[in-house]
Amino acid sequence: MRQPVDLAHASRLLNHGPTVLVSVAHQGRRNLMAAAWSMPVEFTPPRVAVVIDKSTYTRELLLAGGGFALSLPCVACADLAFTVGSVSGRDAAADKFERYGVEAFDGPVLGLPLVAAGIAWLECRLIAEPHAQQAYDTFFGEVVSAQADDRVFAQGRYRFRDDNRDCHTLHHLGAGLFAVASSTVQARMLDAPATPGD
Amino acid sequence: MRQPVDLAHASRLLNHGPTVLVSVAHQGRRNLMAAAWSMPVEFTPPRVAVVIDKSTYTRELLLAGGGFALSLPCVACADLAFTVGSVSGRDAAADKFERYGVEAFDGPVLGLPLVAAGIAWLECRLIAEPHAQQAYDTFFGEVVSAQADDRVFAQGRYRFRDDNRDCHTLHHLGAGLFAVASSTVQARMLDAPATPGD
Repeated sequence: MRQPVDLAHASRLLNHGPTVLVSVAHQGRRNLMAAAWSMPVEFTPPRVAVVIDKSTYTRELLLAGGGFALSLPCVACADLAFTVGSVSGRDAAADKFERYGVEAFDGPVLGLPLVAAGIAWLECRLIAEPHAQQAYDTFFGEVVSAQADDRVFAQGRYRFRDDNRDCHTLHHLGAGLFAVASSTVQARMLDAPATPGD
Repeated sequence: MRQPVDLAHASRLLNHGPTVLVSVAHQGRRNLMAAAWSMPVEFTPPRVAVVIDKSTYTRELLLAGGGFALSLPCVACADLAFTVGSVSGRDAAADKFERYGVEAFDGPVLGLPLVAAGIAWLECRLIAEPHAQQAYDTFFGEVVSAQADDRVFAQGRYRFRDDNRDCHTLHHLGAGLFAVASSTVQARMLDAPATPGD
């Protein structure tokens, strides 16, 4: 079930480097693409960066609409993530949501189309940075809403277990092959040799 | 065994969002920190972005030295990754490499200290972007050398298998808990309903 995530915890949704689906909308047009290249850049205010190529239809609608949403795909929708990342929405007769039967719901703040099959969702207001956009295809945004599926993210943390494998995040290796965040390791602090006053 | 990686494939080392260790050096001083927030931004020339907080000693040496290196930690060195990400190198009597017995080797182009226990390594020349550095703590760099351990990355691709688990990449969830890229899923393209001229 979708639950709101405290904006102060929004970075935790992206901290481990998942592939995301970027959705945009403007004046009745909408689009969806996959992006492997995104990251948080600030906790408070919560801000993220995402790389969106100049050739994409997504970029055109993003700049026109002034916002973007990130939906995090999971094992259960890997085919969807790969497909919308491989087909351009520019020339399609129907938009990619319709074409591939992608169920969407409206983001609570910006009304952007979020992908229901995902496991976490962020809406971001674009921060205009023309130089970074032009030179590095990098778009900065401020997170204005965050939600997650409580089967896999609860109390501000991901819970990757064997019994929720379908909800695990995807990390694109290339050509539709995704690494899956399917296990965890708890690190411990190393002891340094004791040095007085160190 | 360490093998060179074609610079055209450097982005593949980071494409799936691993946590990295950032190392820097300047005039006999060196430092090492962990960073969960990094991403490729361009294939050719190969460029990356990494977020480095204003409070860090790493940032001071990075700006002084004009370069940074990324070593990718793996399951076998999760404790090291967590530890160097939790302790500042600024006030230590010895640098973090010495203090924690971190074996390092020199990067082939910039001579930066790379962490031998990692499984992939990139050296990056800083691209000066004062505004992005100030406003978003985001540092852009051009990758000038790339290497990987052929136990887990060969012919331009990661190979995450049960028999090389110790070499799998880490994806920080918080507080020393890392997701591990320990399995994969191969997606297939969805069929769209056939539409003439679509």
